[in-house]
This record gives sequence, structure tokens and C-alpha cells, in this order.
Amino acid sequence: MTTTTSVMRSEIAQQPEALRRTLEDLLPLRSEIAELGRSVKQVLFIARGSSDNAAVYGSYLLQAHTGYLATLSAPSIATVYGARVDLSGVLAVAISQSGGTKEILETMRWAADCGARTIGITNGAESPLAAEADIALVTRAGNEVAVPATKTYSTQLAALAVLALGLGGDALDPADLERVPDGIEEILATPSDTLDEIVERTVAVHGAVVTGRGMALSTALETALKLKETCYLHTMGMSYADFLHGPIAVADPRTPALLVASPQGPVLPGMVELAGRLRTAGAPVFGIGGGSALASAVDLSLPVPDVPEWLSPMHLIVPAQLLTERLTRRLGHDPDIPRGLNKVTQTA
Amino acid sequence: MTTTTSVMRSEIAQQPEALRRTLEDLLPLRSEIAELGRSVKQVLFIARGSSDNAAVYGSYLLQAHTGYLATLSAPSIATVYGARVDLSGVLAVAISQSGGTKEILETMRWAADCGARTIGITNGAESPLAAEADIALVTRAGNEVAVPATKTYSTQLAALAVLALGLGGDALDPADLERVPDGIEEILATPSDTLDEIVERTVAVHGAVVTGRGMALSTALETALKLKETCYLHTMGMSYADFLHGPIAVADPRTPALLVASPQGPVLPGMVELAGRLRTAGAPVFGIGGGSALASAVDLSLPVPDVPEWLSPMHLIVPAQLLTERLTRRLGHDPDIPRGLNKVTQTA
Repeated sequence: MTTTTSVMRSEIAQQPEALRRTLEDLLPLRSEIAELGRSVKQVLFIARGSSDNAAVYGSYLLQAHTGYLATLSAPSIATVYGARVDLSGVLAVAISQSGGTKEILETMRWAADCGARTIGITNGAESPLAAEADIALVTRAGNEVAVPATKTYSTQLAALAVLALGLGGDALDPADLERVPDGIEEILATPSDTLDEIVERTVAVHGAVVTGRGMALSTALETALKLKETCYLHTMGMSYADFLHGPIAVADPRTPALLVASPQGPVLPGMVELAGRLRTAGAPVFGIGGGSALASAVDLSLPVPDVPEWLSPMHLIVPAQLLTERLTRRLGHDPDIPRGLNKVTQTA
Repeated sequence: MTTTTSVMRSEIAQQPEALRRTLEDLLPLRSEIAELGRSVKQVLFIARGSSDNAAVYGSYLLQAHTGYLATLSAPSIATVYGARVDLSGVLAVAISQSGGTKEILETMRWAADCGARTIGITNGAESPLAAEADIALVTRAGNEVAVPATKTYSTQLAALAVLALGLGGDALDPADLERVPDGIEEILATPSDTLDEIVERTVAVHGAVVTGRGMALSTALETALKLKETCYLHTMGMSYADFLHGPIAVADPRTPALLVASPQGPVLPGMVELAGRLRTAGAPVFGIGGGSALASAVDLSLPVPDVPEWLSPMHLIVPAQLLTERLTRRLGHDPDIPRGLNKVTQTA
């Protein structure tokens, strides 16, 4: 059952327009975000799955550029343990594609009840999450039909970039953010022989590793999640540093490693060094982004535009989405409906 | 090269004494911890690898029982991005087996510089981490020779349990904590035919899943790390909820799932339900803990003593350590010196 295309593939291609619409709606909310930001001193993300990977981007972005501590919550503290935690001075940012996931909604309500202010990031304009948050950042991805999140994920990243601007990321230029959709168009227009070659070298393996660091860790985690949920491939997604703390022992000639890095920024030298170490262990090493430094250190490389590091994750995810979609079809699976999954996951 | 035993195995057996020594030294520090706790309103953990898995336990334990928000830091914000974050009112708890890991030390110094108070949890009595923290909780695991952390990990959990008592976990009984070493002795004295059977059913697989939730998530993550670093097995360790959000698609007859749960507590029903769902997908399902409810829902089960949920992670890790050690030898590897790893990992 190898089809020639998929709904997932067409939704990947809709991202430039989805991002343009989203930025048009959300950039004007910066002053409202700034005002809310003055009443809090830190951010706590509430999310699961792909939205949780977006939260990882938000966590690095806010901490590196706004001075706010920004960490991830454990929803079960609210939904399973029903514990009371002091959240005064906290801005709880709940992220949910549908805006109707019970666990996320319940945790956002719990956070408000514990003293937090709230922001909801969702593609569900009419959802309870949008209705109940102090500020709703509604992404305009349009209807997403394929189970694997693509355009709802990248528009979540855009909403988080707007959040960073609102919270005072003074060194960040909004004009750079507005150019991101053009960069995605550039990636989509790039010929994809290398993509096919990576697919062919991955089709028979039992496991893979995807790693990144800092801002691009989000992309590594999201790529690993996609490879697990649509290709059913045992994929470990983890930070460069965690990888060195033990799991690097799995590196061998039958375990391809995919290294994800922005072409700019302070994490790049470490990623280049890791590429060398993995090749020494005999592992096939592929790169997404990382500019010429990473490209020359890996076997095969998928380029992204050379933009400031804080914006790169919106580009880096696109070759990863294309790779996932193509590998899934090559394996004879349907990328739109992975086995055992529904579009909205409800966990109590 | 199948040896009949290992240093790792003897260090697993040293845990009851290591925990007794550690508790004897640390329990008297509760009032000092309480005083420090009054000057902060939340906890931020700084750790990597096995210590990071211990921090996951600390995060759930403190939030479920003390009312303090407790989350995990991203060390690269300090060490790579050199960002300034407002950490006033934060108690930074740095965890490092050696107490000399540069990344952790540097991040603790950064936290103090950003306004945090500090606690260091380390087995290195003479380490810089112990010397520089406002309070040092020095574990007394003794010298650990095997690369995979066992007794240094479980004594870190004990230090975190003392931290919870100090920070006002009023519903927690210190006498229960003092009985934990007896429970480990009971596990070590249990005949291990089931352990051998799980090893035999795992020896030929390419990947595995380890999952848990809440307090026991730490055990699932640490077990997965051990299986990766010593058995070179592609193992995904993740929470029950994250697993349902996509990765459950990998479940199939060639992918054993190991479910870890305390015999008590609110997460148990969900874990039992997950066991049923995985068996429906044809996956071999093994359990650690979870009492009779989980044991009757899985193929094979390794029991632990029936103690309050907050203490279970110190028991649950022991069958996982024994399983890892035995599977490693069965695969013909040396558990004491996994390929590509050193005892202390330095990441810049």
C-alpha cells in the first residue's frame, strides 16, 4: 500500500500560509501579553505530545531571551494527585491543538485555582481552552486532518515566538519572525534527492536516535515522536547532553543518528563534535540544518535557511516532517492514520 | 563472555546498608532544610542522567506532598546560553553522584548568581558541589565502581525523601522511610525464576518500552536508561500519558513493555488499563510492582513490598537493576563497563 502522497504531505505544504495568518492575528497581542507579563515572574507550560515539544521550544526561548524562568509542568500533579501547589506569580501557558483535551484543560483550571495567570495556545478558536484563558493565542492552522500534527505544531511555535516578543525579548526582531514563512517555502522548493537517500538508508533499521540541543531540542523530540507514531520506529529523541550520559552506548552501524541544529548559535560546535564521535562508532549520521559546519561532519544533510537561532525550529521541523511522511509511505504505512491513534488523545 | 556475576550485582546488594547510613546522616538535617525552605517558594532541580531521573522523583514527591512547585532546569540555559534568569525565591537542588560534574556545578553557581538558594545532593563528601551548596545532603553509598549507577541512585532518592520531610511533607511518616532498607533486603531475598524468564523473553528483541506515571515515572526513566547504556537496547522510557500520545503505535508482539507502578496510589488503575491495551496489541507485557492488580494484568510480574507510594521508587528500582544486570550478562556484555562510557560524564 505505497501511496504517492498523503493528507499529511499537503498539510506540510500549507504551513507558510498557516504561519502568515497566525502571525497576522497574534503579533498585535504583544502589548496585552506584556501587561500580563508584568504581573508574573515565571512561566509554567502545560502540554502533552507534540504540544509538549512546542513547550520545550518555549522554555528555551523564554529563558534565553526574556529573563523569565520557564519550565514544564507535570499534569498528573493536578489531574491524578489533586495536589495544591503555590502558583502565585506564575504564568501558566497551556498548549493544546484542539483546546479540548481534558487533561490540559483540567490542569489549566487547577493552575488558575492555585493562583496562576493563564495563556491558552490552541488551534480551537471556539474551544474551552481559548474561552477560559486570561489571554488566548489562537493559531490559524486551519483544519488539520492527518493524525500527525504538522501545521498545528509549527503555528504553536509561532505563537510562542510572539509570546517571547511580548514578554520582552528585546534582542529579538519581529521582522525576522515575519520572514519565517518565506524560509519554509524555500525548504519546500528544495529538490529532495538527499531525502530519498536518507529514507533508503533508514528503511531497514530497527531503531534510530534523534538529537539536538537548546532551541533545537524541541525539533529533535518532535521528530522522534513523529518517527515513533507514524513509522513505528524505535526512536530515541533526546538532548545532546542526555545522550552523552549513557544512551550513546546504543550507537552502532545499524542505528542511524539524526542530528538537528540551527545554522547559528552556541550549541552548534557541540553538535559537530557529536557527529564525529558517532561516525567513529560506525553509525550512519544524518543532519538537518547546522549550516556547512554540520553538513561537512555528517554523511547526508538536509539544509535550512540561515536565520537567527530562535527562529530556526520553525524551519528545522519541515525537513523532518517530509522525511517522516516519505519514510512512512516507503514502509507501506498510511501516514494519515497511524495504528492505535486518534486525533485527540484523552488521558485522565 | 558470560560471567556469573559482576561488580554491579554486588553494588545492588549493598543498597540496604548504603541507605541506612545515608538516612542516619541526613534525617537530622530536616530542621535545617525547613529553615531554608521558609526563605523560598519553589524548587528547581539541576541534574543529568541517572541524577536527572532522581530529580523526576523529587519533582513529583515535593509537588504532591509539600505544596512547593518543583520543576527541572535546562542546564544549557546557564552553560551554553549564559542567560540571566530571575531565580529569587527559588531553591536550586543540584544532584550529582561525583559532585564534580562541571555542567552541574556551573549551573548551580549560575543559579546562586541569579538569586537562588542552593542544596547539593552528592556522594562526593569532599566535592565542590558539597562545599559550595547552602546545604549539602551527602549520600553515603560508599565508592561505586561499576559505571551504571545503582546505590548512588537509590541513596539520591533517600536524600530527596528527607528533603520532602524537611520541606513539610506533614502526611509523610519518617518511620516508613526508615523501613525502606528492610524492603530492599526482602526483594533481594526473593527467588528470581520470573526474572530469568523475563530475560529469556527479552534477549532477542530489538526494542522495548518502559512506562510509569507519577512517583514511579522516575523508575521507568531510570530503567530505560540502564537498558540503553548496558544492554544497548533501544528502550523508550516515558510516562503513561506521553506514551498514549503517539508512541503507543510502536506496540507489537516484538516489543516488550515493562510497566512500573507502586502497589498503592492513584496512578495504579491507569497502569492496569494500559497493560490490557498493550496485551490487546499483542505486546509481551511485564510488570514491576503494582500489587495483585497489576500482576494479574501482565504476563510476568516482579513484586515489591506494599509500602506508601512515596517510598515505592526506592523499591521498584531494585528488580529493574537486577533485570538489567542479568540481561546484560545474558547478552554477553560486561555490565560494569558499557562501551563508550566513563563513570563521570563531562558535558560543556
